[in-house]
Amino acid sequence: MFIDDAAVLADLASGAAFLGSGGGGDPYYSLLLAEAALARCGRFEVVSLADLPEDALLAPCGWIGAPTVSVEKLPNGGEAVSGLRRLEEIMGKPIDAVLPIEIGGGNGLAPFISAAELGIPVVDCDGMGRAFPESQMAIFNIRGLSACPSVLTAADGSLSVIETGDNVTHERIARALSVSLGGIAHMVEYPLSGAEAKAHAVPGSVSAAIAIGRAIREARTRGEDPFDALGAALEATGLYPHCRSLFDGKIVDLERETRGGFSVGKVTIEGFGGGGRMEIEFQNENLVAESGGRILAMVPDIITVMDRDTADTITTEKLKYGQRVKVVVAAAPAMLRDARALSFVGPRAFGMGFDYQPVEALNETETA
Amino acid sequence: MFIDDAAVLADLASGAAFLGSGGGGDPYYSLLLAEAALARCGRFEVVSLADLPEDALLAPCGWIGAPTVSVEKLPNGGEAVSGLRRLEEIMGKPIDAVLPIEIGGGNGLAPFISAAELGIPVVDCDGMGRAFPESQMAIFNIRGLSACPSVLTAADGSLSVIETGDNVTHERIARALSVSLGGIAHMVEYPLSGAEAKAHAVPGSVSAAIAIGRAIREARTRGEDPFDALGAALEATGLYPHCRSLFDGKIVDLERETRGGFSVGKVTIEGFGGGGRMEIEFQNENLVAESGGRILAMVPDIITVMDRDTADTITTEKLKYGQRVKVVVAAAPAMLRDARALSFVGPRAFGMGFDYQPVEALNETETA
Repeated sequence: MFIDDAAVLADLASGAAFLGSGGGGDPYYSLLLAEAALARCGRFEVVSLADLPEDALLAPCGWIGAPTVSVEKLPNGGEAVSGLRRLEEIMGKPIDAVLPIEIGGGNGLAPFISAAELGIPVVDCDGMGRAFPESQMAIFNIRGLSACPSVLTAADGSLSVIETGDNVTHERIARALSVSLGGIAHMVEYPLSGAEAKAHAVPGSVSAAIAIGRAIREARTRGEDPFDALGAALEATGLYPHCRSLFDGKIVDLERETRGGFSVGKVTIEGFGGGGRMEIEFQNENLVAESGGRILAMVPDIITVMDRDTADTITTEKLKYGQRVKVVVAAAPAMLRDARALSFVGPRAFGMGFDYQPVEALNETETA
Repeated sequence: MFIDDAAVLADLASGAAFLGSGGGGDPYYSLLLAEAALARCGRFEVVSLADLPEDALLAPCGWIGAPTVSVEKLPNGGEAVSGLRRLEEIMGKPIDAVLPIEIGGGNGLAPFISAAELGIPVVDCDGMGRAFPESQMAIFNIRGLSACPSVLTAADGSLSVIETGDNVTHERIARALSVSLGGIAHMVEYPLSGAEAKAHAVPGSVSAAIAIGRAIREARTRGEDPFDALGAALEATGLYPHCRSLFDGKIVDLERETRGGFSVGKVTIEGFGGGGRMEIEFQNENLVAESGGRILAMVPDIITVMDRDTADTITTEKLKYGQRVKVVVAAAPAMLRDARALSFVGPRAFGMGFDYQPVEALNETETA
């Protein structure tokens, strides 16, 4: 598949923003950079997992840091390429393709920019099926692959290579580096083979994001309800089987701070027409949505706050008092919901004192 | 020169402790490790700068972190060698010799342990002529060399390579890494050639430290005053031309915390026989000594607190209430006192609001 139309990039940005569950960074800058790269190179190539040679060298990449910083501190544009080139030196062979470490948010687009520079394709897959705040939450760690060697590069031209046998230590080191580098850095991590990607990556998530974004755009063009279109598109991907609009209201309170290299906080939404209140806690990504003392959705299921008129995703760093929003939830890909995956990306992995319950189970009574 | 006698290692530890100006870490563990290495390898070779080929590859090394952590968190023993081996891979050639990044404290001994493992000599020189808390305070930075590529290794087996064009950014990244790695890490930095070492390293500081330690030991054996012997030995080195005992008293107050990867604080000493009080501020190293509202010594001159009976150096992490001490000061090597050097290692580089004054000028009136 080739992408030679900026509208498709915009669809990808829109779909990736939704899949980010509020995180992964607002795709606005990444979209501008991807459009400029498209203008230079003419088209992007997207290859499916099935078409990869088993021994291909693949490089997942994206930005690590607090999204609140990413909107104020712009990249120098050379971070990704210098990181990828260094990984090639370390591995002693060229990188055959890149992929998003997380499809969610701006990180869903980031690999297109470096792929254009290197003249290589992007693989139609990713490492999280959404966005997560920490590196060890990647499916590649859940499945036992190593994050290292990883390469962090920053706007000041600095480059760091990390090697450690433990992916949690790797996250701690990478996070400390991103903070010391001003809160945001580009990271190439979990270098893997074609065979490993086929076995472990979340398949088809790039084209799923494009389809989701396209559905929203086309519904808006036709004057139809974009939320209906979003739900249908999510189900059609096969990856995100359940979807619902959970809440409709206005943001009446917002606590947000940049702490330990993350954007953390809580947003409170007051329902229209006496619909109660919903509270959503976030750490870069929206983690738990609660209303009337009941939890209605939790990580790893996708919880996204969207503009109630346009169905534009509002990432956590863009939340503002007074915004009129809908909260839309979608079931996470099945591979994130097994017991081993939940030990890395379920609520207890975020320090919460309860077990995971699927969004469809939590909302059963209401649909019954 | 060969070191085949553990007593010489002990002299080196004692002299290095003095030159640390309270920092560089207590040499106790380094001495134990060096003695064990000596027992394994039979002897250490120390080469003078003059004997180095111009194109030799030299690796300055030592530990980065808070000395308070170093006494509680022991190394795994493999950190230095894995860092040096990685530097060899990056440089594409073997390391010909190692040297202490700082002669002061445990870091004056650290290179002997890795030299023994690699079967290479230690160069009779160092990068600071004493100990300083931050990497960019090395003479190699003052003279315009790059700290990178540097390699940090930690007890958990992790390894990080840093590359940046700016040595202050390098220090910030390395410090953040050391904190994320538990407060202490081994670092190989400022890789340089034989020609560069001849032009810029502090020459003869390893043998100076041995001579200082030997003088103290021999005076004690003979029942002579070790402080007189220390003064004579310092002058004889040619590197540390002025020396005096500044204060004699008992520690009556101590503030010390581990903050931002450093041990920072202040120690107050009450003079014997109504001799007033002396206050010494430290950041890993003792920075400023003040008494009766007058500053009597300041960085980069060496300010060392010693046991008043044994002349054993008490590093900042070993200071305790009630210790009976002498404060001994020595002029820093001349290459640390020119205007360019002072902009990196003078009092203003530590955030103090006054210019450098040499210790001999500050104490002129008293000797007159």
